[in-house]
Amino acid sequence: MNWLHIDDTNITPEGFYFSGISAGLKDSKKKDLGLILAPENSICTGLFTQSTVRAACVDLCEQRISKSSNLIRAILINSGHANACTGDLGLRDSMRATSEVSHLLGLNEDQVLICSTGIIGVPIPMSNLIRNLPFLVDNLSDNNSRDIAEAILTTDLIVKRSLIETEIEGRRIRILGIAKGSGMIYPNMATMLSFLACDVEIEKNIWDSMIKEAARISFNAISVDGDTSTNDSLIALNGGNKIDPKYLPCIKEGINIVCQRLAMAIARDGEGANCLIEVKINGARNDFEALKIARKISSSSLVKTAIHGCDPNWGRIISAAGSSGVNFNLNDVDLFIGEYQILSGGKLIQFDKEKISIFIKSRMEGKYLVSDNVEIIFNLNHGQGKGRSWGCDLSKRYVEINSEYTT
Amino acid sequence: MNWLHIDDTNITPEGFYFSGISAGLKDSKKKDLGLILAPENSICTGLFTQSTVRAACVDLCEQRISKSSNLIRAILINSGHANACTGDLGLRDSMRATSEVSHLLGLNEDQVLICSTGIIGVPIPMSNLIRNLPFLVDNLSDNNSRDIAEAILTTDLIVKRSLIETEIEGRRIRILGIAKGSGMIYPNMATMLSFLACDVEIEKNIWDSMIKEAARISFNAISVDGDTSTNDSLIALNGGNKIDPKYLPCIKEGINIVCQRLAMAIARDGEGANCLIEVKINGARNDFEALKIARKISSSSLVKTAIHGCDPNWGRIISAAGSSGVNFNLNDVDLFIGEYQILSGGKLIQFDKEKISIFIKSRMEGKYLVSDNVEIIFNLNHGQGKGRSWGCDLSKRYVEINSEYTT
Repeated sequence: MNWLHIDDTNITPEGFYFSGISAGLKDSKKKDLGLILAPENSICTGLFTQSTVRAACVDLCEQRISKSSNLIRAILINSGHANACTGDLGLRDSMRATSEVSHLLGLNEDQVLICSTGIIGVPIPMSNLIRNLPFLVDNLSDNNSRDIAEAILTTDLIVKRSLIETEIEGRRIRILGIAKGSGMIYPNMATMLSFLACDVEIEKNIWDSMIKEAARISFNAISVDGDTSTNDSLIALNGGNKIDPKYLPCIKEGINIVCQRLAMAIARDGEGANCLIEVKINGARNDFEALKIARKISSSSLVKTAIHGCDPNWGRIISAAGSSGVNFNLNDVDLFIGEYQILSGGKLIQFDKEKISIFIKSRMEGKYLVSDNVEIIFNLNHGQGKGRSWGCDLSKRYVEINSEYTT
Repeated sequence: MNWLHIDDTNITPEGFYFSGISAGLKDSKKKDLGLILAPENSICTGLFTQSTVRAACVDLCEQRISKSSNLIRAILINSGHANACTGDLGLRDSMRATSEVSHLLGLNEDQVLICSTGIIGVPIPMSNLIRNLPFLVDNLSDNNSRDIAEAILTTDLIVKRSLIETEIEGRRIRILGIAKGSGMIYPNMATMLSFLACDVEIEKNIWDSMIKEAARISFNAISVDGDTSTNDSLIALNGGNKIDPKYLPCIKEGINIVCQRLAMAIARDGEGANCLIEVKINGARNDFEALKIARKISSSSLVKTAIHGCDPNWGRIISAAGSSGVNFNLNDVDLFIGEYQILSGGKLIQFDKEKISIFIKSRMEGKYLVSDNVEIIFNLNHGQGKGRSWGCDLSKRYVEINSEYTT
């Protein structure tokens, strides 16, 4: 079974409905309110920020999912205001919004979740939100996921959406993912919102572990600036007909594909970024150690600035790997940037620095997620462990954006 | 007993000799070779980088100190070349340099240490170094510590040197510290070199624990860019007459003062920095948790860019604290920037944003280590734990410097 990427934004998983509108929550008048409606008897799982300081809506989502994961039907998402550090008012606003949505959809309020993203400490303009909810519900559609993918963005430059499709025993199966995030990105969960919909019924415990594993190798493997936010959430819904359990590995693979695609898009859209840095670790003792090294390299400010300067600065790569806390022998290490080898068995080999610089430069000017990735391949020659991580270059523009964006 | 800060660079601890010259190791022709000679029967302790990838000279220092900590007499320091990732040649060069120094000083080669700092992967120009050693030794002096403090610098803009003095039972006692470091700063040990000399004999196990504790609350509490280097070393020597053990707490206090002063100077001299960010955590459950939160705030790229933009962005401070892994209740938190309170019991109080902006701006233009610190005070109101950490603002200049400096 092969998964096909579908570019057509009019195709969605069966039984799911989406809506995205402008409710006047953002000054920019861009879309800022989204809604997902899942089929009856959907199974829901959620992963949330590990931060001690969480928005009230995050607690609300977690409580409602754990209370009845098979009753969740809708997710309301607002962008512009994170509704974090807003005290009791924040919680009241979250509950009021979900209550209103539940009335409009004929659901119980426990069946509705709410996710928020944007500035911290400023309450959501609730009158605008409430006034626009009927319009949001009216716009629900089973053939448009573009609007909601737009509505959840904040400082993002690019819509992050991935839809894949396969056929199992004559039946078409789809997985859709949308995400937002471009700063405060050092997921654990990621500083981001992401939503998945899959039109196959998969039981709760299997779904939970699929999503957890997918997050580990995707959203939890990216870094923009090493910061974690108050609102990070990944919520995944499935619902529809069951399939033969022997096809579950195929679904699992699909979930991983969508999550990695979204994670790469978030890293690539990192504030001020010009290229995607993709770190591949091979030959580690195990996958855990490989990922640990990969994340340390992709999140190193010195590696990120070097790539920004088109400098194949292998010393900083080695140095970042060395400070990852994973033990390895430098004398075993092979290092490549793109297809250019720099170290063999820990020894510097003659390499054409100018050529690699030109290669990196071409990647900085490359096409989004097609030819804009700078690969750093680090082979430890120790074992079978593999790991991948994604980040972006660190530019003056990053500093500019973050010196100006305010709470 | 009070420790006095001494500005006079002609005063040094009794029995210690220093030298710093230009040996043509750097293209800039600035000073690049230093030597410390300690009195006979000195006690030596060393703390070294936790990176897996270490320069050969770091291993050499560690071996020689652990073999005979009371026989170490001299430390050779070169700047310009870290001599890391230079393979077998790197080790041979380190051994050859210490061997030559030992001949010139009439010592055994095991009594000489070597520390290196600078670019990675390029061998030290050994002929220049060896040719200049007699000149270096000739220049040893007991009344000049400025030259060596200059000789160990790389991208630093400012000489980092701290000398304090006190009198105990009619005897003058001095502690001198010098350091270098301005990038790759996330010590654990710090990405830095630092050397301490104290003219009192203190036995090995007490000296070890004094230095370890001092490093914890100074060099290990600063951050410039979250990167750790291959060569970080703190080497501390004491030697002279003994004192009554009842005065040891006074010496311990002095060591802490010198280490914190040097650590602050390193953070303040962070690449591209305009101000020192000083984070003070009070009321944590314990000192360990307080330091953990403090480090997370001072190393957050988002906090650093906000301060650079003169923006009292309390949301990012809270968010960084929340992702430190330490549990606390936001409803108990008081937050101040400088003398301006922003949160009281987790609630935003009316504050004049413009006024705080102007305050931060004035600090960005303030006098080095006198009026250039932006204090962030975070009170958890949980317990008695305290911690301090230092960092600096993140500027476009940081990106510029690190996009251009190459291996």
